[in-house]
Amino acid sequence: MTPIAISLGDPAGIGPELIAAAWALSGTEALPPFVAVGSRHVLEQAARARGLNIAVRSVGSLEEARDSFGQALPVLDLGDVAYAPGAPDDAGAALALAALDAATQLTIAGETSALVTAPIAKSRLARVGFAHPGQTEFVAQACDVAAEGAVMMLAGPSLRVVPVTVHVALSAVPGLLSAELIGRRSAIAAQALMRDFGLADPRIAVAGLNPHAGEDGRMGHEDRAMIAPAVAALQAAGFDARGPLPADTMFHAEARATYDLAVCMYHDQALIPLKALDFDAGVNVTLGLPIIRTSPDHGTAFAIAGTGEARPGAMIAAIRMAGECAARRAAA
Amino acid sequence: MTPIAISLGDPAGIGPELIAAAWALSGTEALPPFVAVGSRHVLEQAARARGLNIAVRSVGSLEEARDSFGQALPVLDLGDVAYAPGAPDDAGAALALAALDAATQLTIAGETSALVTAPIAKSRLARVGFAHPGQTEFVAQACDVAAEGAVMMLAGPSLRVVPVTVHVALSAVPGLLSAELIGRRSAIAAQALMRDFGLADPRIAVAGLNPHAGEDGRMGHEDRAMIAPAVAALQAAGFDARGPLPADTMFHAEARATYDLAVCMYHDQALIPLKALDFDAGVNVTLGLPIIRTSPDHGTAFAIAGTGEARPGAMIAAIRMAGECAARRAAA
Repeated sequence: MTPIAISLGDPAGIGPELIAAAWALSGTEALPPFVAVGSRHVLEQAARARGLNIAVRSVGSLEEARDSFGQALPVLDLGDVAYAPGAPDDAGAALALAALDAATQLTIAGETSALVTAPIAKSRLARVGFAHPGQTEFVAQACDVAAEGAVMMLAGPSLRVVPVTVHVALSAVPGLLSAELIGRRSAIAAQALMRDFGLADPRIAVAGLNPHAGEDGRMGHEDRAMIAPAVAALQAAGFDARGPLPADTMFHAEARATYDLAVCMYHDQALIPLKALDFDAGVNVTLGLPIIRTSPDHGTAFAIAGTGEARPGAMIAAIRMAGECAARRAAA
Repeated sequence: MTPIAISLGDPAGIGPELIAAAWALSGTEALPPFVAVGSRHVLEQAARARGLNIAVRSVGSLEEARDSFGQALPVLDLGDVAYAPGAPDDAGAALALAALDAATQLTIAGETSALVTAPIAKSRLARVGFAHPGQTEFVAQACDVAAEGAVMMLAGPSLRVVPVTVHVALSAVPGLLSAELIGRRSAIAAQALMRDFGLADPRIAVAGLNPHAGEDGRMGHEDRAMIAPAVAALQAAGFDARGPLPADTMFHAEARATYDLAVCMYHDQALIPLKALDFDAGVNVTLGLPIIRTSPDHGTAFAIAGTGEARPGAMIAAIRMAGECAARRAAA
């Protein structure tokens, strides 16, 4: 298979060491071949800091990356910066941005089969010219997809969730929601689950906004005014959708077995159950793009970078999910 | 030990059968002695519908209840109504209310050591003169405690949570919160954990309202304006409190190990993790009362009453917790 591109992330964060750790476990974890995009030097130092005695090889082509993947962690080398875990600087941010850009372009061009992004610090990248709220928006624009067409899904072994609103104050959530927005995000997610996740007819459970989904309007009107019509529209369009469901009873094991995706109204409604159940294995997937893009659901964690404390579970899960989605697209 | 009083709940709901099921398991579960307050006839029929071949005995005193607990489910009989699972009516609601009242008064008088309430349907009880939003408010008033002095805690094997606001629309939550309210609810809960739960210095984790606890005010001001001052006031009063914490990373196993109580800002923030983790074993405890009161964290479930589907885990947990709290108070 064509390798997956993994962007380095901030060199002072835990991204580089987790890429190295994932490569070290790629045999036992049966990971698909990947190529790091960033800096051979940083990856080598990050592996060493973690006590990983692995070979890191600068490669000149993706073919070379694929062929040498069994022997060494292949890197498309964009240059060196000092390896200073926990101490981010502008040179590192510039390298992270260059790596993100190169890995994205390779994947758009079809030279790599999917994009996995290691974590960046947005405020750091903003200092070197990054004008996007996050990597998702950067990748969407590179793909010529409007920001509202890119849908964030968090997926773990126990649960998949899509938050309809994301990084906004809780007080702003009711005003941002609409039947149209809920329906559109849900439909994009359902189509991606069909195309990339092998679900012929994904079962979509839509959460209510208010306690007990509003209890017939006694605790808030949005469940009846916005969410019910969104669900009806999804059903009319042929999707297997139901809701609004009381959010508090949606996430225990028996309830989860009844759906493939929970569409949630706000950040914590989606992220609380996901992280309670799958803290170390959450994958952030961007749906609605022409390319496959995943990332581990954690940040740069500067405070523990270089200590070996960071666990590679989410990075491994992100690589595995990217590979599975790419294989489904290749077979389609 | 003085027996625990368990009010019947709505006779058409799952309460009576779960009381019977808990008694049938009281030996293997090592439950403290309890007495049902309600109707011998309903309990007998509910046990039979569930296939439980148990003896139900009308008792004339709490001493008789305690002494006979090993042989039969003791009942303080307030009269008969037809046993019609799934078909609530006014006669049943009146019996549920009488049982709640009697069980509460017995516990206030110290004749029973704690109160466990089986579920009622509030809208049903309202038809027969019940003017309270729920059983908690009824019990608080009977105890001469103002409604705002009674704090709802949900407790399961994995987690204890207190929602600062409860049954209100999500859009109303920011306006209802204040540093004073958050601090007061937290302090009542912390004191109850000391007195009744055997925690010498309970560790209180206070959730933020907004995603990432507002990220320094970039996503909502309440975390800095209300929650941080509430935490500071709790600390100044000698409590081991911290926060506001990002709610999404508070509920995985390692995070939960760092606190004894999560104080949450709204219903679903508290109930989503509690029910995701401890769905069948959640206990609702009312803190801040002169008596001990618990209830299983589920409703009447009219749809499955009489079918045997309802699981007794939460009722058993509510009885066990009431007994443990009562034993601590008795030993104090």
